[in-house]
Amino acid sequence: MKPSAQPGVVYLVGAGPGDAGLLTLRALHLLQTADIILPDDLVSDEVLGLASPSALIIPVGKRCGQPRITQAGIHALMLEHTRAGRSVVRLKSGDPLVFGRAGEEIAALSEAAIPFEIVPGITSAFAAAARLKTPLTDRSSASKLIFATAHHAAPQPDRPAKLELTPKWEGAFPKDATLIVYMPGRHFRALADELIASGIAPATPCVAVSKATAPDERVHITTLGALDDEAVGPAPVLLLIGDAIQPI
Amino acid sequence: MKPSAQPGVVYLVGAGPGDAGLLTLRALHLLQTADIILPDDLVSDEVLGLASPSALIIPVGKRCGQPRITQAGIHALMLEHTRAGRSVVRLKSGDPLVFGRAGEEIAALSEAAIPFEIVPGITSAFAAAARLKTPLTDRSSASKLIFATAHHAAPQPDRPAKLELTPKWEGAFPKDATLIVYMPGRHFRALADELIASGIAPATPCVAVSKATAPDERVHITTLGALDDEAVGPAPVLLLIGDAIQPI
Repeated sequence: MKPSAQPGVVYLVGAGPGDAGLLTLRALHLLQTADIILPDDLVSDEVLGLASPSALIIPVGKRCGQPRITQAGIHALMLEHTRAGRSVVRLKSGDPLVFGRAGEEIAALSEAAIPFEIVPGITSAFAAAARLKTPLTDRSSASKLIFATAHHAAPQPDRPAKLELTPKWEGAFPKDATLIVYMPGRHFRALADELIASGIAPATPCVAVSKATAPDERVHITTLGALDDEAVGPAPVLLLIGDAIQPI
Repeated sequence: MKPSAQPGVVYLVGAGPGDAGLLTLRALHLLQTADIILPDDLVSDEVLGLASPSALIIPVGKRCGQPRITQAGIHALMLEHTRAGRSVVRLKSGDPLVFGRAGEEIAALSEAAIPFEIVPGITSAFAAAARLKTPLTDRSSASKLIFATAHHAAPQPDRPAKLELTPKWEGAFPKDATLIVYMPGRHFRALADELIASGIAPATPCVAVSKATAPDERVHITTLGALDDEAVGPAPVLLLIGDAIQPI
């Protein structure tokens, strides 16, 4: 077993999708021995409940109407507490190195010469697929797995609000891939139309998972051609698209 | 906490990359309560060492000169033991739904009406990136993350042995993606040439990780243009390719 959280060290830890059973042993050990915990908004109460009672938990989420904490503010907190000799767990939902601005935090820690360790986490796509009991790859139909994000482009005078992959997928989409879209926004129909225009067949299975692994998780099973803005539950939402996606 | 392993149920469990600290809490609980454990070859001794001493461990790996167990043979073992009222953990390295033929095992269990649960695991790419302290995505340079596999095509009378993505990447490779190649075989130079021909710049960072998270892990940091067949350590090997890959 690796050591407990050490004074002056930052641990960039993946909290997984929410279900505390999907936390890693290393993550649990660090949560139980760290002085300071800096969780994102999406980290579940169930996971935070496993932290040491003596740990100081400072939420650093940037949404939901809380006072906004800037990325620089998060860096300042990590530096302040490690320089005071405390151990710090920076807790990110899912895996810390996937769609999580980890590069900026790594750069800040490196520049300040603060020692740090990174602990991977279960990304929500893997947890959602496990609950759906669907493979993500398939030897005959899906030899690639693509994670992408979408963003919501604000309406302009000459065009409505739209959603697209960031940036847009160039050229033909690979025929033998499963696509996972993280943070797909709310205009699912526009995104589906973009993907169909890139060559994904409208009949391709598409599953929208809202709040993966949470008690109020919602699953909407459809096809890309029939994906409907209204039928999907609240954020965070994940889209799983591809012929390999075959929920039981 | 979810229940212990139940009689007559199969648990398709991700063992992670090898480091037992990267096992999930749910996976540990199932290993400690299951009657039968069916591990792949790549599952580490460190992980198997956490199983209940009373569990019967039946290796079902298909390599390394062991008597070959067919996929059908694995299905038969799962059915035999669950029908005898035992709990069965089918333990796969990494995540069970990524490049693991899970679809065939899911189909066999469904057809036989055997109840089953799937527990996700840390895939080796996430563990390797954590050890390298490199992000896998980046807001400015890598908005997509692509997992692919390569296979070794045997030499033919009219051409040498070659390695290519399975199937080959069609058209231009996306400019803003990080590519992870699982099971890249041994002809790295040929694979790199194929990717360069698809549009990835030769100067793109490329890291080959052999035996990710194992005590004898080896890391080879290079560029796609300079990737060398000889410099990479023994299997399993993982290639991480992209501008976001910046090991510290």
